[in-house]
Amino acid sequence: MANYISKHSLARLVGHFTQNDLSGAPEGFKPHPKPVYLSFGVPNSGFFPIESIHATVKDYPFEQNAGSSSVANSNGTTNGTTNGDHKSLKETNESFITTPAHTDDPKLIDIARGLQYSEVNGLTPLLNFTREFITRTHKPGYEDWSTILTSGASDGLLKAADVLLDPEDVILIEEVTFSPFLSSVKHFGGISVPVKLNIHNGSDGIDLEYLLDLLENWETLKPNLRRPKALYTIATGQNPTALTQTLGFRKKVYALAEKYDFAIIEDDPYGYLTLKPYEKPAKEADLQNLPTVEDYLKNELTPSYVTLDTSGRVIRVETFSKLFAPGLRLGFIVAHKNVIDAISKYATLVTRSPSGAAQIVVNNTIQLKFGGLEGWLEWIVKMKATYSHRKNVLLQSIYESEAFEKKYVDVIDSKAGMFAVAKVNFPEGTDVPAKIRLLHFKFINYGVNVVPVVSMTVDKEFSKDKANFFRLSFAPASNDEELAEGGRRLASAIYDFFEKGLEY
Amino acid sequence: MANYISKHSLARLVGHFTQNDLSGAPEGFKPHPKPVYLSFGVPNSGFFPIESIHATVKDYPFEQNAGSSSVANSNGTTNGTTNGDHKSLKETNESFITTPAHTDDPKLIDIARGLQYSEVNGLTPLLNFTREFITRTHKPGYEDWSTILTSGASDGLLKAADVLLDPEDVILIEEVTFSPFLSSVKHFGGISVPVKLNIHNGSDGIDLEYLLDLLENWETLKPNLRRPKALYTIATGQNPTALTQTLGFRKKVYALAEKYDFAIIEDDPYGYLTLKPYEKPAKEADLQNLPTVEDYLKNELTPSYVTLDTSGRVIRVETFSKLFAPGLRLGFIVAHKNVIDAISKYATLVTRSPSGAAQIVVNNTIQLKFGGLEGWLEWIVKMKATYSHRKNVLLQSIYESEAFEKKYVDVIDSKAGMFAVAKVNFPEGTDVPAKIRLLHFKFINYGVNVVPVVSMTVDKEFSKDKANFFRLSFAPASNDEELAEGGRRLASAIYDFFEKGLEY
Repeated sequence: MANYISKHSLARLVGHFTQNDLSGAPEGFKPHPKPVYLSFGVPNSGFFPIESIHATVKDYPFEQNAGSSSVANSNGTTNGTTNGDHKSLKETNESFITTPAHTDDPKLIDIARGLQYSEVNGLTPLLNFTREFITRTHKPGYEDWSTILTSGASDGLLKAADVLLDPEDVILIEEVTFSPFLSSVKHFGGISVPVKLNIHNGSDGIDLEYLLDLLENWETLKPNLRRPKALYTIATGQNPTALTQTLGFRKKVYALAEKYDFAIIEDDPYGYLTLKPYEKPAKEADLQNLPTVEDYLKNELTPSYVTLDTSGRVIRVETFSKLFAPGLRLGFIVAHKNVIDAISKYATLVTRSPSGAAQIVVNNTIQLKFGGLEGWLEWIVKMKATYSHRKNVLLQSIYESEAFEKKYVDVIDSKAGMFAVAKVNFPEGTDVPAKIRLLHFKFINYGVNVVPVVSMTVDKEFSKDKANFFRLSFAPASNDEELAEGGRRLASAIYDFFEKGLEY
Repeated sequence: MANYISKHSLARLVGHFTQNDLSGAPEGFKPHPKPVYLSFGVPNSGFFPIESIHATVKDYPFEQNAGSSSVANSNGTTNGTTNGDHKSLKETNESFITTPAHTDDPKLIDIARGLQYSEVNGLTPLLNFTREFITRTHKPGYEDWSTILTSGASDGLLKAADVLLDPEDVILIEEVTFSPFLSSVKHFGGISVPVKLNIHNGSDGIDLEYLLDLLENWETLKPNLRRPKALYTIATGQNPTALTQTLGFRKKVYALAEKYDFAIIEDDPYGYLTLKPYEKPAKEADLQNLPTVEDYLKNELTPSYVTLDTSGRVIRVETFSKLFAPGLRLGFIVAHKNVIDAISKYATLVTRSPSGAAQIVVNNTIQLKFGGLEGWLEWIVKMKATYSHRKNVLLQSIYESEAFEKKYVDVIDSKAGMFAVAKVNFPEGTDVPAKIRLLHFKFINYGVNVVPVVSMTVDKEFSKDKANFFRLSFAPASNDEELAEGGRRLASAIYDFFEKGLEY
């Protein structure tokens, strides 16, 4: 695997001035068994103003006032609680968790360790949890893998780009993508080359024939560029197309990676949010009849590239942003241990360790509230069911519109993630880019904000035929009504636009 | 000020695909007053498993069990509390603070905002606090300054290096220094040039004549290097020499910066921990007879470079690591607003925002427990008094040793920070580097870990005459006895070494 690691990454030297060099010790030298440390500029945890941290944790997404009745609140601030009753609330005390100043429990991060300088790869309890989690969800197909915590997916992607790309190195990228990654590639002097996508229901996204041709005839098609060193793909619930590659498709792409010897960066922020095919939504998300964790893992989760990996060429980028909360700035990377070691050096020099406060919140919530891995997976199942319901609400509002009935608009019924895609069906011969620009003003006038897929291209010219797609997120809305209203406004704007002969 | 900003920093473009381009709107276009956002891939805060976060906060450093008696604890874990009594504990309820899911209080960060994606410069309440804090403690000498949050001092230093240094740019650095910064300089292709220090009681650190000569005769002395673009200095409680520059000295250095047109990176992690001159320590730190905040600010705190700055050439790097806790990974930078804008672009592309979990903990502790700025400054006064006591305990253990009596060892009585420096007085003609190496093994054998100052050099050869200095930190010890034991072991090791004729 070491041959994929960038030269500048391999060249990094790290070390710390407080490390004792014990080479050349005099005859009879013996270190003291209990040294006193006057070495580190590290405040004793007794200096921290925080004695303990507590949290009230929900049993279900959107549950309010979890455990609040048991919590003293004497600061004159309100947390908005009047009662702790909720149909899904277990005994209130179970929702109140405590991070003590000190504990010997190896699964917990206490204040003394969590708020102290710590290992750049992450605090041991949470680092161990990421390994346990991946072993259960996406176990790599080889032995020598490892994990490292990151400050969220963007940080993880930057680290993946750093560990792979020297200046002038080429990376293949889905033609519309999470475009901030393009800046990460550029930051290291890498070159992004788009790969064609097919955007329709049932598509795997990447156009396999296009990719095959590109790889087979690289020297002819891209005579001035090095052969690709990596592929960056969001294989599940792709951003912005909402498409998910099937397992069979992934196997074909992985075989190409083996044949043409490139690495794969698998960005998977949404993959755990598996979505059922559209059905007319019930009044609210059904959180009482959920699949078992076993069922979810076996039948709903598409195995990721890292599970197919046998030669350590996949770098899997995970995040706690979508399953826990984005503001934590916490995620992790799964890769070959040589790659993790190289990333760890970058972290030592550039980012340092992720915030211990975030690590405390995530780790101890998972351990104390959810009881560890299985409980955390149960939470994920509740999350994905809530997102499934939201998708249904949004899609219903479009499916039941006149615009849809008249086939002015189509929708991608996504299998995972937090996005759907609306496709506007213009008559043949339309100047699509010009009309789309006009239509976008219509959307804003009707009061619905969406993302034109072409604002996320690797190369605007390459992707000009994708101008009639819009990304719709069902994640931010406060409730079903807001979501449905968004869909209705979108459909009405399109209907009005078409009825006016594609004029504002 | 813009002329100090590095070319690569000025060249950065940032933007986001969800930004609406509203140029070229059609006749009569009007945005909807209440749009629905289907644009962002941002989970609604209802998805966060955390409903509220609470903390028990101390009134004094090393106080235990703050407010614990009021806290429900039902997870089977112990937080080690048996009672909430402590001489310094106010009413227990005042120590228990709550961060609610939602609040309208502009000084607080609630869960919905704190755990959400947020402004890269920092969440408004904490960002405002940093401005209020600096206005009171180190008000810049000009108007157009600003602040930006960082993920701790190391992140702040990396950002300062990025904003100033293009490849081959030269930065002057105290010859022994916080050496990880040298890696930051190298990371951007900058060149570190050492500046001579004088290490003795009463010294300002930097050898002003040396610096003057260097600047006056740069072209002769450093014919192959560009003129220095910046000076990096830890002006208060310097790491590792523990020296503090006087105000008069700073004025002279700032005048040189004006004359020779270089920027100053002022790294100040320890400066608030002002220390009284050594006196025989009392049984414990006197936290009952503390100076007022006014007195502390006026008479104990040395005005920093940013207070002398009139042309926006100082970049002040602050951290919450030493005053709150290092594991938060939270700090901030004070600089000219053009510099802050440039740093903000780097943050957008590379680091993103610091963890919201850390921002919640710091901001809401300061606001809810300490009541804002004045209470936070009162906490700092308690911290510095505790460190003052610790310094006395450590120095006493050395002053009362035989090694000190026989003048084998000397100590720098630091005026600020968490370090003291031991100087080993070898007879003239000693091969100091060889003997120091041997002595270091002696320290480890006696069970005391210290940092040889020469392990923190810019240039080993340049600083070979500093080989007989060791940095001693009084921050990590758990209690006075451990600290005194460390000092005694150090002195005994030196005594034994000298009595054996400088042999192990």
